[in-house]
Amino acid sequence: MEKGDKTRADIEMIAMEMASVVGLEGLSFGELAAEADMSKSGLFAHYRSKEKLQLAVLEHARERFHIEVISPALTKKRGIPRIRALVANWVKWEDGAAGGCVFLAASIDFDDRPGMTRDYLWKTQQEWIDFLARSSRLAAEVGDFNFNADHEQFAYELFSLMLGYAHYKRLLGDKKAGQRQKAALERLLTQYSRETKEKDNASQ
Amino acid sequence: MEKGDKTRADIEMIAMEMASVVGLEGLSFGELAAEADMSKSGLFAHYRSKEKLQLAVLEHARERFHIEVISPALTKKRGIPRIRALVANWVKWEDGAAGGCVFLAASIDFDDRPGMTRDYLWKTQQEWIDFLARSSRLAAEVGDFNFNADHEQFAYELFSLMLGYAHYKRLLGDKKAGQRQKAALERLLTQYSRETKEKDNASQ
Repeated sequence: MEKGDKTRADIEMIAMEMASVVGLEGLSFGELAAEADMSKSGLFAHYRSKEKLQLAVLEHARERFHIEVISPALTKKRGIPRIRALVANWVKWEDGAAGGCVFLAASIDFDDRPGMTRDYLWKTQQEWIDFLARSSRLAAEVGDFNFNADHEQFAYELFSLMLGYAHYKRLLGDKKAGQRQKAALERLLTQYSRETKEKDNASQ
Repeated sequence: MEKGDKTRADIEMIAMEMASVVGLEGLSFGELAAEADMSKSGLFAHYRSKEKLQLAVLEHARERFHIEVISPALTKKRGIPRIRALVANWVKWEDGAAGGCVFLAASIDFDDRPGMTRDYLWKTQQEWIDFLARSSRLAAEVGDFNFNADHEQFAYELFSLMLGYAHYKRLLGDKKAGQRQKAALERLLTQYSRETKEKDNASQ
């Protein structure tokens, strides 16, 4: 392949891997060009500014996240089975990237930096959290969870447990991170389904 | 005060605040000198290398964390009251720093960068997690929690909920972050004390 022939998707895949290690702020046209075996000017012609490159990387990551994490879970039965699939896929996503989830790495970089990158990051994270809350709502509709459960609270707790997994695994290098995450998920699911049973018992 | 008269503690307090925003890697002698109203050479004479400056900032933060988060909680009754105090103080700590907890900000920066800074970061985080597990063990000893509870698991879940709080508050700017964190803590405490009651009921 000639230099410069790489598609945007190829470039963004490489950039996403790099950003998972050095952060989105740490991405540079020079290093990315070297890694992608392109000229720096060719790369710059594609994206024009660092901010546009960052946005393109996040858009690419969002698309990959849909393909790898969300879509396969949609084939599972609504309720607890689908939630389990979402979490298992998310763990694979976190484990797969060289430096961990690019969204989490970027979140810390950008939490104090207003701008388009932060706004996009906010949107994708909020979207994912809403999706988790919706999954909890579906679980209530099929009778797996209490219908009166606070689904946004479920999303918060599930998301938190995932952050804990990434932290234990990446920073602490804790070999039990996977086991802790699984136990925490079971505890959360048990608690939400226990409330259903208690409600059922109370109404008998 | 003359330039250069600042004590290490003064410098490190300023550096800690800066690092909470720009990250430990983002700290530079030049910007810190300007912020602390010192000469860059005077500042450099104190620390000699960026790594030593980073370590000094983390040591300072660890000391502050002990003073602000851990010590005041030790005056509370062992068990659930002490755990509540630890969490409340930790939330104040997270809220107090301009850019959030310096340990969390640094964790993402250094998770992929072996070296003394990462090692120190690992040690302080592990220490805090061990402290949380010990608090759970004490809660079991005074009868607040089930004696057979998995205290390391409790520490993982509590730590995760704190990460969730920081993430919701900092990146998402979610006004309900505090409310979510409180509800999650109550849920966790209820679950651990519920297991105690169930055990008590079963043994009657």
